[in-house]
Amino acid sequence: MSGLDENLIGQFSAIVGAKYAVTEALEIEPYVTELRKLFPGRSSLVLLPGSTAEVSAIMRLASQTSTAVVPQGGNTGLVGAGVPDMSGNQIVVSLKRMNKIRQIDTTSNTMIVEAGTILQDIQRAADNADRLFPLSLGSHGTCQIGGNLSSNAGGTGVLAYGNARELCLGLEVVLPNGDVFDDLRKLKKDNTGYDLKNLFIGAEGTLGIITAAVVKLFARPKGREIAWIGLPSPDAALKLFELANSRAGAALTAFELINDVIVGFARAHAPGIRNPLATDFPWYVMMEISSAKSSEDARQICETIAAEAFDAGLAADAAITASIAQFNAIWHLRDTMSEAQRPEGFSIKHDISVPVAAVPEFIAKAGPAVLAIEPDARIVCFGHMGDGNLHYNISQPAGGDGVGFAAKYRQMNEAVHKIVRFLDGSFSAEHGIGQLKRDELLATEPPVAIDLMRRIKRVFDPTGIMNPGKVI
Amino acid sequence: MSGLDENLIGQFSAIVGAKYAVTEALEIEPYVTELRKLFPGRSSLVLLPGSTAEVSAIMRLASQTSTAVVPQGGNTGLVGAGVPDMSGNQIVVSLKRMNKIRQIDTTSNTMIVEAGTILQDIQRAADNADRLFPLSLGSHGTCQIGGNLSSNAGGTGVLAYGNARELCLGLEVVLPNGDVFDDLRKLKKDNTGYDLKNLFIGAEGTLGIITAAVVKLFARPKGREIAWIGLPSPDAALKLFELANSRAGAALTAFELINDVIVGFARAHAPGIRNPLATDFPWYVMMEISSAKSSEDARQICETIAAEAFDAGLAADAAITASIAQFNAIWHLRDTMSEAQRPEGFSIKHDISVPVAAVPEFIAKAGPAVLAIEPDARIVCFGHMGDGNLHYNISQPAGGDGVGFAAKYRQMNEAVHKIVRFLDGSFSAEHGIGQLKRDELLATEPPVAIDLMRRIKRVFDPTGIMNPGKVI
Repeated sequence: MSGLDENLIGQFSAIVGAKYAVTEALEIEPYVTELRKLFPGRSSLVLLPGSTAEVSAIMRLASQTSTAVVPQGGNTGLVGAGVPDMSGNQIVVSLKRMNKIRQIDTTSNTMIVEAGTILQDIQRAADNADRLFPLSLGSHGTCQIGGNLSSNAGGTGVLAYGNARELCLGLEVVLPNGDVFDDLRKLKKDNTGYDLKNLFIGAEGTLGIITAAVVKLFARPKGREIAWIGLPSPDAALKLFELANSRAGAALTAFELINDVIVGFARAHAPGIRNPLATDFPWYVMMEISSAKSSEDARQICETIAAEAFDAGLAADAAITASIAQFNAIWHLRDTMSEAQRPEGFSIKHDISVPVAAVPEFIAKAGPAVLAIEPDARIVCFGHMGDGNLHYNISQPAGGDGVGFAAKYRQMNEAVHKIVRFLDGSFSAEHGIGQLKRDELLATEPPVAIDLMRRIKRVFDPTGIMNPGKVI
Repeated sequence: MSGLDENLIGQFSAIVGAKYAVTEALEIEPYVTELRKLFPGRSSLVLLPGSTAEVSAIMRLASQTSTAVVPQGGNTGLVGAGVPDMSGNQIVVSLKRMNKIRQIDTTSNTMIVEAGTILQDIQRAADNADRLFPLSLGSHGTCQIGGNLSSNAGGTGVLAYGNARELCLGLEVVLPNGDVFDDLRKLKKDNTGYDLKNLFIGAEGTLGIITAAVVKLFARPKGREIAWIGLPSPDAALKLFELANSRAGAALTAFELINDVIVGFARAHAPGIRNPLATDFPWYVMMEISSAKSSEDARQICETIAAEAFDAGLAADAAITASIAQFNAIWHLRDTMSEAQRPEGFSIKHDISVPVAAVPEFIAKAGPAVLAIEPDARIVCFGHMGDGNLHYNISQPAGGDGVGFAAKYRQMNEAVHKIVRFLDGSFSAEHGIGQLKRDELLATEPPVAIDLMRRIKRVFDPTGIMNPGKVI
């Protein structure tokens, strides 16, 4: 089955040591299989380097021998960017052993982390230092910061703190030829030449392997509270967003739009989940307010906004957290939403963004387009309204034919993405391109942009060994 | 004197129309002369295009005829990036006529602006729409947003809102071959391929001509107040910064460190300027707090921080603004600091950044290094402490020999920048590279980075017609 000869495997293994060169098929399995099993892959060698020097030596040898390399973080990606193809010729380089937090600087508000550090470990280390690292994803217990940066991860903290891109001050990257691009600086301002850092961020490992990063820390809020609000429509949610933005400013740290379907799935499948409100509504908003002063201050801002929303007829009911238990329960409800779709059968997923003002129009137009293809489809719609980013996922008809429904994947994508394009949106807001959306990228992005991306790829990776078949 | 032949001048002029093709030497003068007159330039043709299509036609012809083009905004840059060389062969393309605000979207919190729009016009348009555009520079009445983005401008708003880079969601750029890169989208999240946008931002017009941009707007604070604080040392200022960050979080919207020398210059040369405090101190901090609630809330936060600073022995005296007049007077004092150095003679300037925690160490080390070269030099030190960015400018000895002092420019730069490198800082925090710092960039940046920049330049501009001689 191996496409790599034994001699080459030996040379690569010698770089990391036999203990950290995985060659047994059973042990390799988790590295070549991704979460949703959409992208089958094979490999005869997984390397677990322990240092930047080892990653550099791997790439130098890969470059000399034209061996394709797939960098891998926590393997939680959703577009197949972190797994090898079926050839068996591609080596997987997992960064999991490079998981040290090298430095926390609470004065500069920076942390230097190795690429394999698990996101939750970074969040906790920040917390222990009385700081906040605001990147927050459902997969935080498994995903790694190198993967977060390579995919420019989003999540629920983007509204106030930005994407992974905005949270990164400096990078260390091993280039395809083994050279090390060392820009591990803790600078908030640095205008010395072209912005190479942001090319690596979001490149999904196709331009080099991120080995370490300087990330930003923030003052930890003294209080955080949530209002869970029932509303009649996305239109009302949009008006509520404007109101919240005006009243809270930078204290508005999450504004999630959630439809009744996904709340129903969560109640059906996740133990202990309930609707925080006594009555059901077609739409909900989960709004988080963070205060630099106190919980009381955060709660008071929530109450002010909710009261104004009632007066304006935007909100039908609202629950405001008054304890840590309530706060955690609502975040738990939000965090289960990805998982809760699984027991309902096959799901055709969309990770789209549109201008914030166009969110209601998107929802109004996409619904009929979906139902024209499958009248009994169940539309799961939730996401980061404050960023114009929705997870718009279509679950198969209840108790229906999953395989027949799955066959409509492309048709459904085309119908939804056509509306996205009409609204000047993006068909990949935060999950990236990987293998899943590569054809669509090439088919729909302007040729001028595609041509520049192709030529930039050749600058970094002239022989095409760096995560081939992904993105471009 | 012209290096361009008449026929070519005619062809270029025909694109914009005779009225907008400047060929008279006297009229050309302001376009080839920059503020500090450090970079003499000549040109026989300045074009004032009125549309993206005209810019595209100019670049297509330039590309066909190998004519070098220098894009120019408000011509307020400090590194000679926006003026032509002495050959007379370079055409200047001024964006000043492309100054329309195309759209304000107060729901998505975005504005679409043409590159030639003056920064102050954008700030005012945002204000009129009850929004904030936070980019704020001394030159706001003259500089243009295209230049701000091309130089990734910083300024006093970076601490809370980020550099020009972070304020931009989308770009329209004319490439050297005349193609238009159209990414004028209002999206907060878009992970579709490599980040081309951030290559153009900060490239100082060497990769293409920015013709329009989508910029971010923010909720306008309901109250803003300033504390002007006298302190014994940069060390105390750093501790005060940590305290302010912890108490105010995102409400801390400026934190400027200022030494007594520049306050003295401002009082001597700018009419109506006074020290807001009754006594003089060696160092001052100007701290701005913005509140989403009210002026009272902003003032209360200022008072809390000032009171704690007194108790901790960090602050010696403080004045907190209690009226718009006082607020404006302190900002006026801050804004005059650039100008106030001029009457004091020749100034050797440094625009440096270091990790925030290293600011006191930089100041402690740089002072003796400067005085070893010129014992009577007067050290002007002010800047954005919260970003680790200082304008560390050395004024000639009072009443001394300006020409003799100017001869020490390079020696002084080397001494100061050596300390910056020792502290892992940047020798160009916000002003860019242009002509002024190109040699230093090439000499001190890692060869791996320089090589990538050179090859990226060739991807965009294979014939080298786009603002040649700048950056790389």
